[in-house]
Formats: sequence, structure tokens, C-alpha cells
Amino acid sequence: MKKRIVIGQAGGPTAVINASLVSLAEALAPKHDITFVFNGYEGLAEGNFLEGTTDLLERLQMYKDVPGACLGSGRFESSMEVIEKMCQQLNHIGADTLIMIGGNGTMYALHLIEKELANKGTDLQVIGIPKTVDNDLGGTDHSPGFGSAARYVAQTVADSSRDLMAMNNFEQVRILETMGRNSGWLAGASGFFKKYEEEGPHFIGLPEIPDTHEQLFESVEASLQSHGQALLVVSEGMLWKDSLNAEHKNGRAVLGGVSAQIKSSLEEYFKISVRAEVLGMNQRSSSVYISESDKQEAMEIGTKAAHLVNENVSGQMVCIERISNLPYHVKINTTSFKNVIKEGERALPGKFINDQKQYYEWLRPLIGNGLSYPPPLRKEDNIYASSIDRPK
Amino acid sequence: MKKRIVIGQAGGPTAVINASLVSLAEALAPKHDITFVFNGYEGLAEGNFLEGTTDLLERLQMYKDVPGACLGSGRFESSMEVIEKMCQQLNHIGADTLIMIGGNGTMYALHLIEKELANKGTDLQVIGIPKTVDNDLGGTDHSPGFGSAARYVAQTVADSSRDLMAMNNFEQVRILETMGRNSGWLAGASGFFKKYEEEGPHFIGLPEIPDTHEQLFESVEASLQSHGQALLVVSEGMLWKDSLNAEHKNGRAVLGGVSAQIKSSLEEYFKISVRAEVLGMNQRSSSVYISESDKQEAMEIGTKAAHLVNENVSGQMVCIERISNLPYHVKINTTSFKNVIKEGERALPGKFINDQKQYYEWLRPLIGNGLSYPPPLRKEDNIYASSIDRPK
Repeated sequence: MKKRIVIGQAGGPTAVINASLVSLAEALAPKHDITFVFNGYEGLAEGNFLEGTTDLLERLQMYKDVPGACLGSGRFESSMEVIEKMCQQLNHIGADTLIMIGGNGTMYALHLIEKELANKGTDLQVIGIPKTVDNDLGGTDHSPGFGSAARYVAQTVADSSRDLMAMNNFEQVRILETMGRNSGWLAGASGFFKKYEEEGPHFIGLPEIPDTHEQLFESVEASLQSHGQALLVVSEGMLWKDSLNAEHKNGRAVLGGVSAQIKSSLEEYFKISVRAEVLGMNQRSSSVYISESDKQEAMEIGTKAAHLVNENVSGQMVCIERISNLPYHVKINTTSFKNVIKEGERALPGKFINDQKQYYEWLRPLIGNGLSYPPPLRKEDNIYASSIDRPK
Repeated sequence: MKKRIVIGQAGGPTAVINASLVSLAEALAPKHDITFVFNGYEGLAEGNFLEGTTDLLERLQMYKDVPGACLGSGRFESSMEVIEKMCQQLNHIGADTLIMIGGNGTMYALHLIEKELANKGTDLQVIGIPKTVDNDLGGTDHSPGFGSAARYVAQTVADSSRDLMAMNNFEQVRILETMGRNSGWLAGASGFFKKYEEEGPHFIGLPEIPDTHEQLFESVEASLQSHGQALLVVSEGMLWKDSLNAEHKNGRAVLGGVSAQIKSSLEEYFKISVRAEVLGMNQRSSSVYISESDKQEAMEIGTKAAHLVNENVSGQMVCIERISNLPYHVKINTTSFKNVIKEGERALPGKFINDQKQYYEWLRPLIGNGLSYPPPLRKEDNIYASSIDRPK
């Protein structure tokens, strides 16, 4: 049966969200009529639609490797009043199916739309496609977008470690702040390429396990003593057990995120200059760090959603089920919106926090093998030490 | 003649400074004795040396693609007292040649060391190898390290543009701050991949041409009206004609760099939330953005320095002379330290500021062709606009 299928993207973009969109449209186009939504849920409420003409579908092909959400996405608070507007718009254009690519909020909104229309006697087929860089979406082993972002964080920390090692005599402490308001999947991935103790991270701050400033100071002190430097990685949502937080001791509020606050605390405690860097939007938008397996799965998930349309499945999000880790084998499956909503914002599990190796083995298929850096040259190799009097 | 050659790295590292080092050592090793300096000029003054054994030279091979300076580098203020210490150390180990890889400060120190030893009757052969991400080093068409950093900036702005376009309804103004304390080569490179007017940069702030806040507000306003968003790129060293600077109108000092100040000004003026991001150390250390031609030239320059050793040349920095742009053809040449020092910190020339196209043609061989993104999907393509009453 030919269907009128409405497709949109919602929430923060990822480097591979367009890959899902393109493969979805590609698989649906020959059989169905496609209408795209501009600007996510806001566009859906406003009736901001784009007809999926042959021309447009051809143009869309060019977006497979382009970061950002090419249909527009953004954030949007949907009230029940807005949900009703969306339903009216969908009825108005005679939609049979609604497919949105998004995260937790997206799946919740899809669930509400389906329910609202069912209450009014309309059976709309509703399907969700997962995406998130934080990996905080439940009901799936992981989500497209995360692998590339994790690769960004892991590689950046490896490279920044080599940079910091070279700056030993000038810069001793560097803080890198990753995305992850509610979960530490990304910050936790930062040690993925670490092989030598001089390399960072020497401290990881997570939202899942609140730290004390004493623990922080101890980690930094130990690393300074052993390596003459310390590279810290903190999740933007990391939590503290103690209160030495945004409000600083000297009474001046510290602006910026958690890395700026830690910079300020460390500078006061150690009386040294500290660099704080927020890794920023590049974590989710860099086309250069795209993980091949992440992109591949993003596309497979798009194709799977197209199959669900033809199988008349509704109320489901496509998900990834990991069958085995070594060799890596996954099944592209489905899970109900209810299940996704029930799981809520999925934290980095304790088993991965307590056993980093286990987490990195789990991560390996998503990030890929990547680089292998040699051991740092060490002071012990110094053969001429104290050859003459040292300058002051 | 077999020489005792002392080799070190100085200043901020780049993604390809090790490529120069490895190819230099490779070309010298069969014929000469090599001593490496740990931690740049500080290490030289302290006699912090590493013997270039066969083992070490083999290990060094593994660093060709590793960012950071594997010998240690860092910053160091060298006084005449320290210069004397360095000369003593060089005499002490019987150095015939000193080769340092670095920027403006490095070349100046090499010049002083050569002069100081000559005054004392010692002929030390002194050779400089250029590196800088800012491209502010004179006497050369460009320096290794810049091409990769420029690729980082250009690609990041292209990717961030696609990300921002998707966030139209949530985020309207984004500021990206690049390296470049004294010169705008990197910030100026940010539009290299720009093909469509929606893409950033919509404003570029440079150290070479002071702007007024009025100009800034006008640019942002124009872009907001045309595209509903604005992406600004500012060099960390950008200058203002007017005084609305670090000290903010409401009397509260604005912490952070120039992007944080602009964020604050724009938020006050437009009453919207603005995101400011500092692109950070990844500009100089990311191994993923390395430009192939940059790495290639870094290696050729290392090899050239080895030839200069055998030709008994001294007081010279290896440089790149551009013979033609299309086809790209360069000659690896030499220029005197005096010439480098005379040129001082080299700014982005007016011809490139006034004619961006000319600058980008000059840049193309250094960055490479890279990506080609399709035109953004536009609102004009909307076929269902106002199909029903829009929600408020």
C-alpha cells in the first residue's frame, strides 16, 4: 500500500544523522510519497513541510556525509497544545506515517502524538530512529552519532596529551570538558587510546559518580609528581559531593561550565596557571572524525525503519541489539516507545565505570582501532644530566 | 666530516613538527653523531640531552605521524645569561652544529647563540627549521604546521555552519575563536570551504584591521535578517577601534578571551543567548586534520636542513619559496636569521584581507581540496506554508 510518509529530524544534530535520513528516504522513495518536515517539531506544529520530489530526493543523496541535520532540527518544548497542532497538521496533509530521527525527547513526543491521534480515532503509524552523541537514549545498545563523538573525544585527548607533554615547562594542568549533561559515556571514552601513564586522562569527572574536590586535588597532585603534568577530562554534567561549586571561595562567581570552575579551584589550590577547554560542537559535527561503523549503522537503521513502514509496525523505535562483541555482531531490532521512556536517560553503567577495560572493549567496534602512538621519550634516557652547573 | 649535531624543538608544538624532526634525523644519522635536546631551550641551558643511539633513532621513526613535540618543547624566556649557559653546554659536549625547530623566538635565540660563540672564537654551525601554526614567521612563504591548522579551522567552520543551520530555532549566534595572537592567517582561512551565503563565517575579526562594535553589530544584524543566524570567527588577537572591551558596561569584568567578550556584548545588544567557543589546542595538535602537503613539506624541510649541514651553511633558516601557485610549485630554500628577525611577526597581508579569493587560491595547495558540501535546503522550497493556522 502506498503511504504518505512524513519524515523529520529533531534535537541536536550529529555527524551521521543525515546518513540515517538519506538511507531511509532512499529505501522508501520508490514505493511511497514522502513529505519532509523543516525544523523538527517546531516545523511540524507550523506545517513547515517540503515535498519529497524526485529532484529533492536526488539532492538529498549529497547529504550522506554532511554533518548537521539538513532538514533543520533544533530544540523544542512540546506542550499538549502543540502536540494537538502537530496532529492537525498530520491529518491535514493526510499522513499515514510519521518518522522522526531524534533522542529521548523525540521518542516521548512521538509516543504522545500516536496516543493523541488514537484517542481521536486516527491510526497513524509512528516510528522513531535513534540519534544522540551523549548515548543517553535507552532501549538500544547504543545510538548512531555516539561512535563518532566518542572517537572525537578519545582521539582529541590522545593528541592533546602529546601536545601537553611537550609543554611541560610552560603548562602543567589542562582540563578538557566533554558533552554529557546526564551521562558520562563520552567523558568515559576519553582514555580509549591511552597506553602510557604520561598520557591523559589522569582524572575523569562523571555525572554518575559525584567526586569531592579533595579527590580532584589528590589526583592532580599525584600526576604532577609522577609526570610533571596532569590532563583532566570532565563531563559537562559532572557532579560534586562537596559544595565548593559555582560560587567561589573569594565570593566571586565563576562564569562558564564545570571546566572553568575546576580551573579556578585548581589555580587557587596549586597556585599555578591552568588551561580549561570546552571541546564544543565539533564533538557532534566534525565530519573528519566520523567513525565508519557509526555511519554504517546510521544507514542500516534508516533502512530498517523503511522496512517497518512496509510491515505496518508502529509505536516502535529502531534499536541496536549487540549479539556479540568479538567478533562484533549486532542485530538491528525494534523497541517500544514505552520501553525507551521507561528507561529514561541512560547513564554509563557501574560495570563500565569500575572496569574501564571492559568499557573500552565494548567501545572498540564503535570507535575503530585508530592510531597507535609510541611510548613517550623519558627523562630516564637523559645521558648528560648535570653535565655542568645548571642555570638557576 | 663527521659532526656532533645537537637537535631540539622549541615553542608551541604543531601536528607535523615531529615529521620535520624525523626526516632531519633520518638524513643525518648515517654520517654524523646526533645529540637531542629535551625540552627546548630550557633543556639546552640545563644540559638535558639525549644521545642519538641507533635504538633511539629507530624509535624516533614511530613519531612521524604523532602530534606534539616528542623531544619536549615549551616556552622559555632566554636572557643573555641563559644564552651563555647554552653556549657552555654546547661547548661542553663538543657540538659542531645546532639545529632547532621553532618560530620567531627560536630563530632569534639561534642568532644570539651563533653570535655569542663567534665572539668567543667558536664557529658553531647554526640552522633553523621553521614551524608555526599562526604562520607569523617571516622569511618564508609559509611554515610547516600552518597548513594543518588552517585545514582544522576551515573544516571546523564548515561543519559548525551545518550544525548551526540545523539549530536555527534554538541558537542564532555562534562565535568561534581561533589561534593567532598577532596575525589573522588562521581566522582568515575560516571561509575557505564557504560556498553558500548561509554558511559562516558571516564576520571575521582580525588583529590586522581593528573593527568597531558597530561594524560587528551590523554584520550580525544583517546575517540574522537574511539567514536567521550568524556564525562569527575571531582571531584571539583581534583588535577594536572603540573601547567597549574587556570591561563591560554594567561594570562587571568579562572573563575569558575575545570570544567571551563578544558574546557578552552581543547578548546585551540583541538580548539573545550567544554561544562562544574557543577552538583550542586541537588546532595545532589534531592528527586527524593533518594536511598531506603540510606533512610532506615538513619532511622535505627536515631533509633540506640535513643537506645544509653537509654544505657547511650556517646562520640560516630553511624556508619555502613559492615558485608558482597553479600548478603549485615550491623551492625549499634558505633565508638568514637576520632576515627573519627583520621581518618580525608577519601579518596577513592587505591584499589577502581585501581579496579573500586571492587568499583562498594561495591557501588551496596547503589545505587541499577537501570536502564539497551541497547547497542548504531552503525555506523557499516550502510547499505547504500556512496550510492551517500556525500555533502561536
